[in-house]
Amino acid sequence: MQFSKSLAFLVATLATSLTVARSANPPGNWGVLLFPNFAALDVFGPIEALNLLSETVPLNLSLIAKTLDPVPTQPHVPGEVSNFTQSVVPTHTLANAPSDIEVLLIPGPGPRAPDLRDEIAFIRDTYPRLKYLIAVCTGAWLAADSGVLDGHNATTNKAAWAERPVNNTVNWIAHARWVVDGNIWTSSGISAGIDAALAFVGEIYGEGLATDVANAMEYERNTDPTRDPFADLYGL
Amino acid sequence: MQFSKSLAFLVATLATSLTVARSANPPGNWGVLLFPNFAALDVFGPIEALNLLSETVPLNLSLIAKTLDPVPTQPHVPGEVSNFTQSVVPTHTLANAPSDIEVLLIPGPGPRAPDLRDEIAFIRDTYPRLKYLIAVCTGAWLAADSGVLDGHNATTNKAAWAERPVNNTVNWIAHARWVVDGNIWTSSGISAGIDAALAFVGEIYGEGLATDVANAMEYERNTDPTRDPFADLYGL
Repeated sequence: MQFSKSLAFLVATLATSLTVARSANPPGNWGVLLFPNFAALDVFGPIEALNLLSETVPLNLSLIAKTLDPVPTQPHVPGEVSNFTQSVVPTHTLANAPSDIEVLLIPGPGPRAPDLRDEIAFIRDTYPRLKYLIAVCTGAWLAADSGVLDGHNATTNKAAWAERPVNNTVNWIAHARWVVDGNIWTSSGISAGIDAALAFVGEIYGEGLATDVANAMEYERNTDPTRDPFADLYGL
Repeated sequence: MQFSKSLAFLVATLATSLTVARSANPPGNWGVLLFPNFAALDVFGPIEALNLLSETVPLNLSLIAKTLDPVPTQPHVPGEVSNFTQSVVPTHTLANAPSDIEVLLIPGPGPRAPDLRDEIAFIRDTYPRLKYLIAVCTGAWLAADSGVLDGHNATTNKAAWAERPVNNTVNWIAHARWVVDGNIWTSSGISAGIDAALAFVGEIYGEGLATDVANAMEYERNTDPTRDPFADLYGL
């Protein structure tokens, strides 16, 4: 097989779009917060877009967790109905995360996540140094609990809308695929993170690149942040 | 935060659909083939659907690679434009993979994948024992090279369509989001794996469950396997 031709195609496609990048100094240093029972697609939907973008735009990724132990999507619990999990290897701990991270992506915890107070403190302490914060799905719950969403517009998972933290001054917006408020991007549930990430790529790195990445992913984008059929589905 | 309520919601939602499962004995033992430079979303799009399904349907997952070393989406190459990779921990090697795997998912290799002849041999040797084979994106190139697609209809990545292996008797179908032929499912590029996986869940475990999983993912499905805007986009 000739994989090198495939690479050449992708690079050539993406390179044509570099001239339309909107930001003179787009962020290169990304971090993803990981914890047991993170939703896999909350991470790998957005990150696939960045994986492709990284073919031509210089990007670095840190995967940050409490320890360097592999982080499972489902902590194995004996007696559970299934044993169906995937584990991702962190590159840094909360304590030694790089100080120059510019974009932090927070995926959503599932129902079996442990106490995440250390991760919430990390978000609170790291946010002032960030250029951008992106929280996908119930990841916005963690951002809200850290205080960084106070006084901001935000959205989150729609299936579990009623359970979002409300002991704060977040202006939760139900009908939104994603919400941008200042340098904070929040998305609706799970797959909404892909649309938010592609919108972020378009806004920050250039719309031509976002289109090229979406086409390389063969993904039909929702480009309208206010179009949210799942808010309707869940009666919000 | 009350994650337990979220769990209760999901389980209650999915449980209502169990009664419409189509197959009396649906497969429970899944395997995913991993190799360096696998496309992250080729795995984690379909597998997110299965992660959610596994809340109520008993499922087991084996992650199979040449060795037990963590498998990177991008092998790090000094001097590359980016250092942007994620590594997943295998549970089994090609040599000691469980003999009772019923569904094997093959993601697509990217342009920096190493020689995959051992993985191709694994596909050829394992296929006769499987109930189903699912190949996403350029994963169908590996399936084709193994010989198991000979005489079958199949599809694959559209951006790299011209590079698909043609030294075989595969009937490649360009205009298809995914193709089912007997027990072999192949999908178009990257995100098409999500639509194929949800169609598979609907066909094998029940359409009600597929709808519930897609809604929990807040994912707008393409339910028509013949609707493929990317075949048009890439001039096929």
